[in-house]
Formats: sequence, C-alpha cells, structure tokens
Amino acid sequence: MKFCSQCGGRVEKRLPEGDDRERWTCTACDAVHYQNPIVVVGCLVERQRPEGCAEILLCRRGIEPAHGRWTVPAGFLELGETIADGAARETREEAGADVRIVAQHSALDLVHIGQHYAMFRAALADPGYAPPDFPPGSESLECRFFGFDELPWDALAFPAVHFALELRRNDVLQGVDHMHHGRVQWNGTGSRFDAANYEITDHMRTPLG
Amino acid sequence: MKFCSQCGGRVEKRLPEGDDRERWTCTACDAVHYQNPIVVVGCLVERQRPEGCAEILLCRRGIEPAHGRWTVPAGFLELGETIADGAARETREEAGADVRIVAQHSALDLVHIGQHYAMFRAALADPGYAPPDFPPGSESLECRFFGFDELPWDALAFPAVHFALELRRNDVLQGVDHMHHGRVQWNGTGSRFDAANYEITDHMRTPLG
Repeated sequence: MKFCSQCGGRVEKRLPEGDDRERWTCTACDAVHYQNPIVVVGCLVERQRPEGCAEILLCRRGIEPAHGRWTVPAGFLELGETIADGAARETREEAGADVRIVAQHSALDLVHIGQHYAMFRAALADPGYAPPDFPPGSESLECRFFGFDELPWDALAFPAVHFALELRRNDVLQGVDHMHHGRVQWNGTGSRFDAANYEITDHMRTPLG
Repeated sequence: MKFCSQCGGRVEKRLPEGDDRERWTCTACDAVHYQNPIVVVGCLVERQRPEGCAEILLCRRGIEPAHGRWTVPAGFLELGETIADGAARETREEAGADVRIVAQHSALDLVHIGQHYAMFRAALADPGYAPPDFPPGSESLECRFFGFDELPWDALAFPAVHFALELRRNDVLQGVDHMHHGRVQWNGTGSRFDAANYEITDHMRTPLG
C-alpha cells in the first residue's frame, strides 16, 4: 500500500492513538487503512458408494495458481453472502454441483498469508449429479469423486486443502464427526504450495453429536 | 474507494475478464482492488455460580459506537492470529481476563455491513478473576457476570451480540450445546444498532457431542 484510497495522498505506517500496532495512515487526510485477514470458503462434498464407503468431490484447477492440481471447491467469501452460502456458490461455480450444507468441518488459519478457511461438509442436492464439461479457461479442468483411500496427496493444490482432507479422512476412518480448528503453519522455508513444508498447530477438535 | 492504493490513479467499477461482478479497478495501472467481508471474533466467557447456574461475562463499552452499552468481548481479527487467538486477545484487552477456549459457539454473518462474527465459548484461566479498574478512555467502563435470566437485553451494544446471547441462553436453558450458523438480517429500516430491527435467518444448529 502506497497511496490513500480516499484522497490519493501518500500513506505511511503510524501508530494510531490508543492502538497497539502500526497502521497504514494517510499523510494528507489522516485516514487509517486497516488490513485484516480474508475469508476463504469451500465444501467437502461427500457421498456414499454403493459398497458403503464414502467418497469426496475434487476439482482439478484450470487456472493459476496451482494449475492442473486438485482441490476441493473453494474461494474467497464475497460481500453480501454468508459463509455457508459462499461455500455452496463456489461449489456451483467450480464443480457445477448444487449442494446442501451439512455442518462446518473446519476453521483453519493461514496466518502467514492472512487467510482464514471456513470449510463445510456438504451433500449433493441432486443424487444424479455428473460433472459438467468445462470450457477452456474456466476455473476447473475436470471434477471427480475420490475414495478417502485414493486421494491424490501428491497432486493437491493448497496446504489448507491437504490438512482439511487429512482431518476429514481420519474422522471418516474412525466413524466420528468433528469440527476442527487449527493453524496451518508454514515452516518458513521451501515452497508455500507444498504441504510437506507445513504442520497443523493449535489443533482443537470438537466432537459433533 | 476513489484512488488506487498501488499507484494513486483514479479507480472505477469494472467487470474483470472472467469475473461475474464489478470490482474497483485502477484506470492507470489496471490493478483490481477486491473488497471482502471482515471477521469479528469474540468470547462468551461462562462460569458456574455456587448454586449451580451459569453466568456470562459482559463488558460495558467505554468507546463509540454504542458507548455505555453492554457487549461480550469482541473485535476485529488481526493479521497474524487465528480466530481462537483473536477471540482470547479481545477478551484480555476488553475484560482483563485470560481464558481457555472451549469450542466455537456461532458463526454469524451480517451481510449488510460485510461482517462475519466467529464467537467462542470460553472459561476463565484464573478462577479468581476479578474485573480490573479501567482507566478513562479505555475500551471498557466496567465488566461483570450476568446470569442468563438477568441479561440486560435493552442495553446491549450490537445485534450480533443480542443473537449470540439469545442462542446461547436457549442452549443453556435446555442443557445442550450447539454450534450455530446464521444470517443476522437487518429489516432495512430503523436503527442498525437496535436488535428489534433484525431477525436471524438461515439458522443451522449443529449439536455438539
């Protein structure tokens, strides 16, 4: 940030009166420009296979970053929507699937990039759902369901997706549902896209009834 | 928003290629300035009275807006912290209380002002806690515990606080714990500070085990 979005003047970091951290402040009009974390919302869309085990919907990304890698449908929360509505919207946009939200699965903070992930478990509204054909340039290349024992761990798009899937897989294997909170912590070196350079800390799991 | 924070040029609303809503875009350098909801975090700090019923910690606000009115400790999530850490920090700042986070209580969206509230149930880290004396100008005038049957409904600061307390009171009375999601919906007329002008919609409650 270099300029004031209100008056166009130069900004500098200043400690506002009564505050305990420096904020970008306009040198011309004194407007204070706060910077806060941004919310990412998404869905873990699950269904049962005929033989009884669960599978989950992933999308292969058609845009950068992480083009060609797999993710759950997710994206930035927009003004005017709830986190549950935003998660359902992203699923419609990226997978062509209408869903019914079941419960929140996780609240994960990536503090090194100022992102908060709110991930929901969801079920297909239409049991006859089939992934659409995505036109070139769209956000997804393809979508498909994966069993929890066949997830493409080496081709996932984002560390937050890796940990959401790992937490959910563990719950599915144990036959219990939790809501998870945690910090997805980068170790400070290596690629920020590689989950091997991350760990989950401050993990709190709340059993669901 | 009138000016680009990167180059100081004029901005205008434009539909970026591949997007479905207009964004503030710089007419000089083409930078797109997204606007997204902001996260508020806070704590419902509860303890048991000797006779067994629960009480909850409220703070009387020493600053505007809603000076002199009661709230749970809450404020904007900062860069660098998890939502649970932010809720605990606000409780330290506004009530002088160190807490242990128990579970998330609610995720409430106030879409008309672009705010998402993440509220946690919490317990005092120090059972001998007594509210501090707040110096003039601090965020709180006083703090005290209220029984759930004696909450100051007519003197609460914010509609989101009203609904968080109402949802929690109902759970306490019924002896069950839930995580709640919902939209705190303004009816479009009357004061935005008066909970009577709001209702909660899209309410989803997840029983906790």
